Order: sequence, then structure tokens, then C-alpha cells
Amino acid sequence: MIRIGILGYGNLGKGVEKAVNAASDQELVGVFTRRDPATLKIATEGVKVYSTDDLSNMTDAIDVLIICGGSATDLPVQTPTYAKEFNVVDSFDTHAKIPQHYEKVGSAASSGNKIAVISAGWDPGLFSLGRCYFSSILPEGADYTFWGRGVSQGHSDAIRRIEGVLDARQYTIPVPDALEAVRSGSRPTLTTRQKHTRECFVVAKEGADKDRIEEEIKSMPNYFADYDTTVHFITKEELDRDHSGLPHGGSVIYTGKTSDNASHTLELNLKLDSNPEFTGSVLCACARAAYRMNKEGQKGARTMFDIPPAYLSPLEADELRAKLL
Amino acid sequence: MIRIGILGYGNLGKGVEKAVNAASDQELVGVFTRRDPATLKIATEGVKVYSTDDLSNMTDAIDVLIICGGSATDLPVQTPTYAKEFNVVDSFDTHAKIPQHYEKVGSAASSGNKIAVISAGWDPGLFSLGRCYFSSILPEGADYTFWGRGVSQGHSDAIRRIEGVLDARQYTIPVPDALEAVRSGSRPTLTTRQKHTRECFVVAKEGADKDRIEEEIKSMPNYFADYDTTVHFITKEELDRDHSGLPHGGSVIYTGKTSDNASHTLELNLKLDSNPEFTGSVLCACARAAYRMNKEGQKGARTMFDIPPAYLSPLEADELRAKLL
Repeated sequence: MIRIGILGYGNLGKGVEKAVNAASDQELVGVFTRRDPATLKIATEGVKVYSTDDLSNMTDAIDVLIICGGSATDLPVQTPTYAKEFNVVDSFDTHAKIPQHYEKVGSAASSGNKIAVISAGWDPGLFSLGRCYFSSILPEGADYTFWGRGVSQGHSDAIRRIEGVLDARQYTIPVPDALEAVRSGSRPTLTTRQKHTRECFVVAKEGADKDRIEEEIKSMPNYFADYDTTVHFITKEELDRDHSGLPHGGSVIYTGKTSDNASHTLELNLKLDSNPEFTGSVLCACARAAYRMNKEGQKGARTMFDIPPAYLSPLEADELRAKLL
Repeated sequence: MIRIGILGYGNLGKGVEKAVNAASDQELVGVFTRRDPATLKIATEGVKVYSTDDLSNMTDAIDVLIICGGSATDLPVQTPTYAKEFNVVDSFDTHAKIPQHYEKVGSAASSGNKIAVISAGWDPGLFSLGRCYFSSILPEGADYTFWGRGVSQGHSDAIRRIEGVLDARQYTIPVPDALEAVRSGSRPTLTTRQKHTRECFVVAKEGADKDRIEEEIKSMPNYFADYDTTVHFITKEELDRDHSGLPHGGSVIYTGKTSDNASHTLELNLKLDSNPEFTGSVLCACARAAYRMNKEGQKGARTMFDIPPAYLSPLEADELRAKLL
């Protein structure tokens, strides 16, 4: 059994916990928190909650530490710190800062003879793999990534920060015409506005000026200004009843040619009822790979580009060839 | 530049030739044939056709030999033979015999310190990767593979062997209701008949008994008896005009759960105008990986399960992380 520690118990940490318990070859050693462990109750019976301060005494008890913090401030510190003492997996998703995160985590992991898998999940992660496989096979072509229909937590948070907003949920939605144009193989140039729309469900505080809230949302730079955005005001009861989940998904579509008469459309589609539970499941599969690579004597930073697919599977190599090839 | 040799110049060999010429880091050294080289004219200007007898003198001139023979009788002999002297790639696709092919090719490649990538293409190949990634991430789930709409060359050949048939083309078609049932996440149990239908376009010889031909097709064991089959009689001109391509494709659909309320649908879809050109492109990407793995000192048999995705790409690892992750 591969002994897993989880650092952080938000939505993602809870998703990892479910995935570890579903894996036939993994067991949960403990959940680690920066809060007072006594205040945290986890879903798995019989598994302890520890303080992150306990981690340094548990290097022999944990094979892989899955770090479930946020990319903005947690992971840039946590992953390099713990990669010195543990094989680690994270879901660092600030695309522009991945090269720098890779370098920093790589030095730490190498110095400790550990493996660190960074930026695992579905994007970055499974979608990155789609882009890599498809473009490697068909060099003459173009890739398009669409997200949704799904909840963007960053955009939902941005709406919640507006004065007069009690709660909100934002959905990112691919534009059907854009999907169709891409699938046709015409390799269209698409603006931000042409690719996705944004739909917002907002609970306003009593007496708040809804027109002003709607205007503030639609004109918010980076988040909404470049998109066609729809705003619906609903009650708190409706929000809790109809929008409590965190579904997501999307498509990587690659179109390419091998000759004048031969075009090809390659597509990876995900439809996920729970973004954090699916992401947690990817991290868990990567923890298996990290464990195996380190067992072989490998060390340093890795992304999913570097992991042979067989290392992610609980099946032995000969079973994989017999059953899935 | 990675120096590529192509063994065999049927549809697949021609597809590989196009892919090598499209790759920025590969060059075609020669095409090797068991026929008299003087009788073969290839598409690439300035590249020579050689006899397979010349291969033993060209071990230093070729980095990877892509073997484009058939799985029934060619590859079981050719791949183990040439894996002793060359890094090789093949598309061996007799699923039941893959373990035995892997063993035989692996011994040969190891004895010669070479890498042999077997069973590359899209199924086995890219579809196998879909099954592996999806099931590794979501252990509680089920995978379904659908083929088509596309031309099955084996089934077309089977029809051509019937007395009174001049020419024929057979399409394999997924059943829309089956696709829908699978995508719903209900994990249905589907019979062969429920998953695919077969559509045949047949040119009969003058005076041939069409009713007898249709009956022989529909009742042919293994090939058609277990399917709902439609037979259209058309003229040779219509066949050449409307059915001269070799399109194919299909879908790997995986549905799985992470909790009672969270189901996920993961899908890999390929729509290919030319099956041999796309398969050739996959073999070419695998040749790049074979070359790199062997450069590192690796030897023995590999499948696409064993290849880190980054090894397939012409991009450097840091470019991959910056651009595609």
C-alpha cells in the first residue's frame, strides 16, 4: 500500500481523500492542517488530523504528500518546502508561473532525492496531455481549448467581493458556434468573446442596487469585460438548491492535416459533476507514479508530460498490455 | 535530424512517408521492399528504394526503422528480426497476440541494445492511452470503445472473396442509441449487435446473383453474422467516386464516479479522413520517442503505455511546459 498524506482540507483535499479511499493500492495516513487539528473533523473514520508542524516527524510514515493548497499563495511556498522531505504532488495552475515553480520545486526535490509532480489535474493536466499528444502526432494543425459548462470559483469569488452581493455562482460556457467552427477544421482565429460566455447567478443583499451590481460585474476588467455576460438575480434558497455543485469540464479540440485531402479532428472531452473530486482523483493517480519513479531512484520535478502512462495505473504492466492495449 | 527507414510501402508505408516529411526533426533515408526495388516508385524526390537485403549494411545509416507490414504474417517475423539491429516501431494490432509479440520483440531488442515500440497507432495506441488514463484516474467506472464511421479493410476484403463480387467497401458504424446510453453514465451492458452496425457497398460481377451475395455477406460468421448489416449494390464508377477514401475514427468513452452525487464522463474522439496517414503519423511520433529512449541507453520492447508523452513531441521539455501545460 502506498501511504498518502493530505496537506489542506478544502474542496480539493476532500476530493483527494475520496480518491485515496477508492484506490486499491493506497491508504490515507493523515490529513495535515495549519489550523488547530482539534477543530477539523474529516470524513474518513479512524484517520487522524495532524498539524503541519508534525510533518517533519513523519517523513518515514508517508510515501507521498499530496498538497492541496491554492496556487496564488500556498503552493509557491508549500511545494518547494515539503519536496525536500517528501515525494509530493500539487495542482499548481498559474500557467504563466509554471516554469519558475518547476525550477524551484525541482531544486528542492533533487536535494532531498524525492520526486515532485507539479501542475497535475485536468487543466493543467489531462488537457495538457491532449494538446501534447495531438500536436506531436500532427505537427501541421492547431489546438483549441474550451472550458465549461462549469463553475469558475475565481469568477464567483470576484462577484462576491462586489458591494451589495450576498452570494454568487458563475458559469463559464463555450459558444456553440465556436465549437462548430473549430470542429469543421477551418482553424478559425477566435477572440476571447467568441469562445466563451459567462452566466452569473447572484444573490443581492436586501435593498441593494441590482442595476449597479449588474453593471459592475459586466464591466469588471479581466474577469468579465471581454465576455458577453448574463446576470440573473435569484434568492439564496434558489442558489443553494440549484447551484450548490461544482461541475466543470470542457474540450481540447485539435484539427490537423496529413495531406490536402486528409484532415483529422482529435478531441478530448470531460464532463465532470465535481471539479474538486475529479482533480483529486488525478492527483491520486500521480501520487502512484511519484511513488514508483522515486522507488526507481528518480528525483526532481516532473509534470504529467514526463510520466509514462503505465505508472499512473494500479494494474501491472503485463495486465495493462493484455487488458487495455 | 532523426534518420528514418520505412519497411514496406503499402498504404501505411505511404502514410509514414508523409509524416516523416512533415516532421521538423526527421529525414527519410530510404524505403525498403521485399520486391525488386526497381519496380517501386515512391513519392519523395531524391530518396532511394532499397531491397530489404540491403538493411544489414545500413545499420549505421538509420536511427529508427518503421515497419509497415501486416499483423497477420509480416510483423510477427519482421519486428523480432529487425529489432536486433535497429530501433523499430510497428503497429501490431492482433490484440490477443500482443503479449506474445511483446515478449519475442523484447528479447530481440534487448539482445541488440535497441528499443522496439510495438502496437503503435490509434487502436491499439491512442485509444489504449485513453483507456489507461481514464481508468487510472477513476477506478470505479467502465470504458467503452466505439469504432467508426469508418472503412474496415478486413471486412471489405472478406466481401471481395465472395463469388460474384468485383469490389466492395465496408463501413463500421456506431449505434447512436448505444453512444447515448454510454454517455448517460448508466454503464449499460451492450451486445456486439447493439454497439455497431455494418454497411456494405458492393460491386457485383455482371450476371451475378445479388440475393445470394447479400445472404452470404449477412450470414458470414465473425465478420457479419453478429451485426445488423445493410448491403447496397452500386456500380464500379460509384464505388470509385464515393468510396475511394479510407476514413475511420471512433470514441473511447469512460464513465465513472467519485461519490454518489458525482459522475464523470471522459471521452476521446477521433475523426480521421485517412486511417493510414493518421496511423503513420502516430508511428512517426513513436519513432522520435524510440530514438530518444535508446540514446539514453534504454533497450527492450515498449508500448505507448511506457512512453512519457514529452518524448513524442518535437518540442524541448521547457517549451512544452511553457506552451502546452
